Amino acid sequence: MRFTAEDIDGHEVARREALYGPLAEAVRELVDATIRTEVDAAAVQEVEATVRAATARLRDRQIDGAFGVRYTEDGRIMPWGNVVIGLRNPIAPPLTVHRERDRCWSEFTLGAAYEGPPGHVHGGICALVLDHVLGSASSPEKPNFTGTLTLRYRRATPLGPLRAEARIDRVDGVKTYVVGALSDSDGVTVEAEGVFILPVWAREGSTTTPT
Amino acid sequence: MRFTAEDIDGHEVARREALYGPLAEAVRELVDATIRTEVDAAAVQEVEATVRAATARLRDRQIDGAFGVRYTEDGRIMPWGNVVIGLRNPIAPPLTVHRERDRCWSEFTLGAAYEGPPGHVHGGICALVLDHVLGSASSPEKPNFTGTLTLRYRRATPLGPLRAEARIDRVDGVKTYVVGALSDSDGVTVEAEGVFILPVWAREGSTTTPT
Repeated sequence: MRFTAEDIDGHEVARREALYGPLAEAVRELVDATIRTEVDAAAVQEVEATVRAATARLRDRQIDGAFGVRYTEDGRIMPWGNVVIGLRNPIAPPLTVHRERDRCWSEFTLGAAYEGPPGHVHGGICALVLDHVLGSASSPEKPNFTGTLTLRYRRATPLGPLRAEARIDRVDGVKTYVVGALSDSDGVTVEAEGVFILPVWAREGSTTTPT
Repeated sequence: MRFTAEDIDGHEVARREALYGPLAEAVRELVDATIRTEVDAAAVQEVEATVRAATARLRDRQIDGAFGVRYTEDGRIMPWGNVVIGLRNPIAPPLTVHRERDRCWSEFTLGAAYEGPPGHVHGGICALVLDHVLGSASSPEKPNFTGTLTLRYRRATPLGPLRAEARIDRVDGVKTYVVGALSDSDGVTVEAEGVFILPVWAREGSTTTPT
């Protein structure tokens, strides 16, 4: 598993954010409209052709495979392809995860694209969001990997504005125990607990660091 | 939670599948290209403008809110907005879930849009897929809801071709215990067990049926 170093400065990072962020945001809107549209067949087919042409244009020059996780020389992380927080990933809502000491939280809105039961968030999307926020809480610096994750669904989570939060419960060697919850305005909908594990190459004294 | 009955026949269902399926597929490709493109800034901005115009065209007429889960009069289900299996949802890979007695399985490929760690599937996407396949295995007919879900991550799941499967372990009243796993070509990457619960309105003798 390789992280990618990029030899760019803060200005170049900002330029790329300003370029790729709005493109991903536009595609997020298109995803929502694709699910909800009721225009006639001719219009749907024209949009399909337009989208295929736009895709071909973007693919004129593209990286092989996935985006990866990139770092700048000064240690700034760019997880722009990440499916939960990625600036360049139209599937990502995207979440902005805030940190306060041993606690992380995020407030975000999930619309039509995240549906499972009618009008409600898919239970697996609740798991996706909680996995990410618990994982973030588990480690302020080094990357942690999910060891186990347990979810208790108290009630269905409605589509709309939501909040996810998590905090470290205890640390035992390379294992960090984290608890958290997903909530709507009426309170908790899903509770979660997870054990997150520091990968071997990130442990102190390891000689197998990623590059 | 309301399911939506649609007064349409098999031919109309097929017509809609043939219209909306390719649109969602085209948008899936655009999502991938949005993450991976390296074309110049002018091209990115032109595509962004094109996508915004396409979205506006689709939004000329659209449903309020999410797609929901729809049924035809003859009982055919159309979960087309679903984030895992939805024909109309560009976020859905989409999975096709097969059933054999008390067992469900699905083979599918996850690309750049589902990334967490570099080159690997986000742990929460593994949870999303497993929640759905376990839930499907839990109930051949009536809708079940996730009660608890526990995931054990044996190793990181690489992006690429994958298989998820699940089977009923035991049934205890309204609770169905299901076990399953996600695998790549080298074997299991994530194990899962879940308890799925028949909602009150779907239980025998209930007078509060959804419409």
